[in-house]
Amino acid sequence: MTKKTIFEQIKHKNSFLCLGLDPDVAKMPKHLLDGSDTPIYDFCKSIVDEVQHLCVAVKINTAFFEAYGVDGYTSLARIATYIKAHYPELFLIADAKRGDIGNTSLRYAAAFYDAMPFDAITIAPYMGKDSVEPFLSRQGKHAILLALTSNEGAADFQFQLSADTPLYQHVLRKSQEWKNASRLMYVVGATKADHLSEIRALVPNSFLLVPGVGAQGGSLLEVYKNGANAQVGLLVNSSRSILYASDGKNYPAAALAAATELQQQMAKLLNK
Amino acid sequence: MTKKTIFEQIKHKNSFLCLGLDPDVAKMPKHLLDGSDTPIYDFCKSIVDEVQHLCVAVKINTAFFEAYGVDGYTSLARIATYIKAHYPELFLIADAKRGDIGNTSLRYAAAFYDAMPFDAITIAPYMGKDSVEPFLSRQGKHAILLALTSNEGAADFQFQLSADTPLYQHVLRKSQEWKNASRLMYVVGATKADHLSEIRALVPNSFLLVPGVGAQGGSLLEVYKNGANAQVGLLVNSSRSILYASDGKNYPAAALAAATELQQQMAKLLNK
Repeated sequence: MTKKTIFEQIKHKNSFLCLGLDPDVAKMPKHLLDGSDTPIYDFCKSIVDEVQHLCVAVKINTAFFEAYGVDGYTSLARIATYIKAHYPELFLIADAKRGDIGNTSLRYAAAFYDAMPFDAITIAPYMGKDSVEPFLSRQGKHAILLALTSNEGAADFQFQLSADTPLYQHVLRKSQEWKNASRLMYVVGATKADHLSEIRALVPNSFLLVPGVGAQGGSLLEVYKNGANAQVGLLVNSSRSILYASDGKNYPAAALAAATELQQQMAKLLNK
Repeated sequence: MTKKTIFEQIKHKNSFLCLGLDPDVAKMPKHLLDGSDTPIYDFCKSIVDEVQHLCVAVKINTAFFEAYGVDGYTSLARIATYIKAHYPELFLIADAKRGDIGNTSLRYAAAFYDAMPFDAITIAPYMGKDSVEPFLSRQGKHAILLALTSNEGAADFQFQLSADTPLYQHVLRKSQEWKNASRLMYVVGATKADHLSEIRALVPNSFLLVPGVGAQGGSLLEVYKNGANAQVGLLVNSSRSILYASDGKNYPAAALAAATELQQQMAKLLNK
């Protein structure tokens, strides 16, 4: 999927919402756990079916599936396949934080682009150029590089100054020199919204995947004001506030209401 | 498994060899591809059975399994389970390069420590403390943090100077302050052997996982001279030179010969 297609979807749906799937059995509606052999798949499917028209992207957190071993991995492949088959217009992201030497990154690209139908994968930048380029060599497939993350540990290394410039800015700048850099996107936590203007100046044409709005405390208005470009260039992720809007039988309606509220806030910003 | 147990195995086997399992169908003996539904599992199992007495650790590169989707992931879980059941004395490493915010890293820990029987997992440090600590909270389980990798892209960020100190040294120093840091190990490429003395000075008591001897050009003697501590503190990985010593029907014998040669070089160094 190209950036142009994502932008068209944003205009069409009046939304730059990315639905995050982090299925946590402990927070899921209890009645789902009794009636099914595949409660995680069922839960994710029902949420996606309910809110897909309000989103332009879905981000699947692979850890929440891998935690359940082969069964979990099977659910991961199954939900990715279901989403791409039924809602091909959704930009499908594997939030997998992979990245390794070149010949190994090629295998991860095969895992997420061939064995599963993802459009993009999140990548840690520590190993540099040859760990990332294998994810960029295909038309319509994107690597989403960690730049500035929303967690506490972000402070440990991402702000280290080198020549008066923090590491995350070196990551942005350097990665723009890599082959097929036009297919790079970046993870920028919403809790770091005050850094978004600098980031946008460094990567004016790249989409930014922004987690941390809602549960983690980031402000949608700040993110939009500091981060939007002419093609919007933002995918704002919400996971918990939609998935766990209710743990009762009314959970699909509650998820719909939560997603609708976010989409309407986004529509207001887009139409200003 | 504790560091003490690993050291005892090193003395017992006169070896600090880590067998790397990066099963590549294109390089595997052709006759294995015809006769089996699970050639990757069969190949890995036969190699492990053949050389296990010469190794103290096995490092499984998860990408080479994930590339084949659910079937590949099933083989990953199956080979890990086989190794731990038959050779419990082998230190079993998932070379998975994971790492995410705390509640997600907890899930990856469950994936590799609970759903599969790994003793350790490799982790990218970019997201800092809370992305790593969930892998350190269990007795006998270890996180192996990327410090200085053997690939070309290592130059992009790992050598960035901050206060005259390269990033990889900040990673070593900072991570030693984290909770349960005694369970941290580090990845240091053998191609960077000239940096090993500095690294050893910063983390005198940590095991170092060293890939890159052999196919990638690192020298075992240099690695030992600069990197060994009183408990040896080294796990030197070899993948390709053992796995693909032959692509004919004699591949187990060829793998045995290649592993024996490495083990004997190690025995010489250990007994000097």
